[in-house]
Amino acid sequence: MDLIKKTVKKIKNPDKKMFDAAKEKLRQQARPAGSLGILEDIGARLASIFGTFDVRLSKKRVVVCAGDHGICAEGVSLFPSDVTASMVYNFVDGGASINVIARHAGAVVKVADLGVDWNFEPALPIFHKKIKRGTLNFAHGPAMTRGDAQNSIEAGIEIVEEMFQKERIHLLGTGDMGIGNTTPSTAIIAVYSGHSVSELTGRGTGINDETLKRKIDAIEKGLAVNNPDPDDPIDVLAKVGGFEIGGLAGLVLGAAARGIPVVCDGLISTAGALLASKIAPLAGKYLFAGHNSVEAGHHFMLKHLNLDPLLDLKLRLGEGTGAALAMELIDAATRILFEIKKFEEVAIKDVQNSRQAVLK
Amino acid sequence: MDLIKKTVKKIKNPDKKMFDAAKEKLRQQARPAGSLGILEDIGARLASIFGTFDVRLSKKRVVVCAGDHGICAEGVSLFPSDVTASMVYNFVDGGASINVIARHAGAVVKVADLGVDWNFEPALPIFHKKIKRGTLNFAHGPAMTRGDAQNSIEAGIEIVEEMFQKERIHLLGTGDMGIGNTTPSTAIIAVYSGHSVSELTGRGTGINDETLKRKIDAIEKGLAVNNPDPDDPIDVLAKVGGFEIGGLAGLVLGAAARGIPVVCDGLISTAGALLASKIAPLAGKYLFAGHNSVEAGHHFMLKHLNLDPLLDLKLRLGEGTGAALAMELIDAATRILFEIKKFEEVAIKDVQNSRQAVLK
Repeated sequence: MDLIKKTVKKIKNPDKKMFDAAKEKLRQQARPAGSLGILEDIGARLASIFGTFDVRLSKKRVVVCAGDHGICAEGVSLFPSDVTASMVYNFVDGGASINVIARHAGAVVKVADLGVDWNFEPALPIFHKKIKRGTLNFAHGPAMTRGDAQNSIEAGIEIVEEMFQKERIHLLGTGDMGIGNTTPSTAIIAVYSGHSVSELTGRGTGINDETLKRKIDAIEKGLAVNNPDPDDPIDVLAKVGGFEIGGLAGLVLGAAARGIPVVCDGLISTAGALLASKIAPLAGKYLFAGHNSVEAGHHFMLKHLNLDPLLDLKLRLGEGTGAALAMELIDAATRILFEIKKFEEVAIKDVQNSRQAVLK
Repeated sequence: MDLIKKTVKKIKNPDKKMFDAAKEKLRQQARPAGSLGILEDIGARLASIFGTFDVRLSKKRVVVCAGDHGICAEGVSLFPSDVTASMVYNFVDGGASINVIARHAGAVVKVADLGVDWNFEPALPIFHKKIKRGTLNFAHGPAMTRGDAQNSIEAGIEIVEEMFQKERIHLLGTGDMGIGNTTPSTAIIAVYSGHSVSELTGRGTGINDETLKRKIDAIEKGLAVNNPDPDDPIDVLAKVGGFEIGGLAGLVLGAAARGIPVVCDGLISTAGALLASKIAPLAGKYLFAGHNSVEAGHHFMLKHLNLDPLLDLKLRLGEGTGAALAMELIDAATRILFEIKKFEEVAIKDVQNSRQAVLK
């Protein structure tokens, strides 16, 4: 718990003056004011985080946090839990969706075991941060102890710290793997949004109507049985969350403390980010929404966090794929801010010279 | 006119079998079916266009077609017409928005003068395809003659042909520059959509209510005076179009005839693409929508063309910026199709091996 408190204390508000100066620089460029939409805001936010107009995000990392879920016993998912472990190996081998997309985006993929129901070999090149082999079934009681919830968040903080010490990363994408994990994520947004569980619950990997009904029932039951306290985000995580969701919250806190912007992926990553912003509201200033997921609850999370998603491609995969895809747009936003010239720098001067040359 | 006819005849339907095979390949990948949303469809369409799963779009070009507009005399724009020529010089100098974004996307920018009200030096490295120095004011009669409309389309075809002969391009982005050109573009979608002009008209570079009213009036007057024939797209172009819009239509026809996919930018580029698809419906099979513009009419064009936009970033700049930004997503779609492994190729086998290793 000391690590969480210490980390939260380190998070600074990004430089508002730099944000305003960046907005003014964008306004003076040789194009209609505001014509580059959301990318202008992203460029200005990054300038305020890094304290420069010339932001270079050359070291990009995507951390995929993995964990298993006791709630699967309620029959909420299409896939069996052991797919989680399979996919961890697939990530390490480089053949999964996130590997392909991250390679394309110039990002390195790192995998973290927060609570997979499988004993990985210590030599496997992942962050070994297992809290327990899967959560308990939160339809019948808390998913984990309060201590384990704190430990999962601290594990996320430690992961960022290790990466930062080793290689000073510039941009962190968050991703998830965990069969059943749209269920706890939906429970978390249900705690905060005030909308009904049925309005917030999506089909995850593609479940049918019957499974969807079981999923909604399981979430409603879990919320009723556990009564998580919205004013205590660690209580919410412990009661209806997951180990990888705690890890994802920790990643956001750790990154914000080090001044590293974070691109969230979909429902699960954003559930972690939402908890992080409840623990430390300033952490929200370091968050960027990679995309708008097909999962209903995600839209409400983004609204709650006041984030405009960069992409809306009907993705519903997770693994950090939406975060990695958005990274190139974030890079583009930094180049837009720094490289586009003003009218008076180029165009008008040039056309005047050319005019004189042509008229001579 | 012969060139248009010849070009249309060359356009082939992309390989449907390849599309279906690509969809099946995507379905078998180690992730929930359909979970990569729109990118799956894009990958499959590109496979069907190129006849391979391993599509490599290494030679990307953005062609920015420029022209001026007599309709500006109605006071429809915030900027004076001579900004069009200024910006052509800015594109050549590499300091404009499209240069910055295309560099980032790995695309080369080419500029084409279709009808700028300025005599560029012959040595200026652009495609010199000027039809006339600006269109006539279509609020009082046709914007151009039918012959000039045909010539502008043929100029676009010739541009693609020159590029193809010289460097076998793989992906073509279309862009525009022309003060006042959201006005003819909106008139074109008004001809086809059946919606009212006021519903279709946007604020272009950022005009106020008064100018917006003048713009709507000018379009309504132009449509009433000219009565363009929807069944004759060249008539529509001649009556209420623009030279760069003709060029943009020609780019699409020329690219489709050579089997080159085209990424459209916003309202003006898509107006050209819409006319191209009216001239040759098969050309639509080569179109990809880079983004969804803030301009109201653009949304209706995409609906008419049955295209899902890749981005929705509140852009309203033109120049091909939205097309260039989308190119990296299109690249990602090709890698997704080719590189993501099947469950049976990696994950399950590996986890079984690992399990055996661990259990030993």
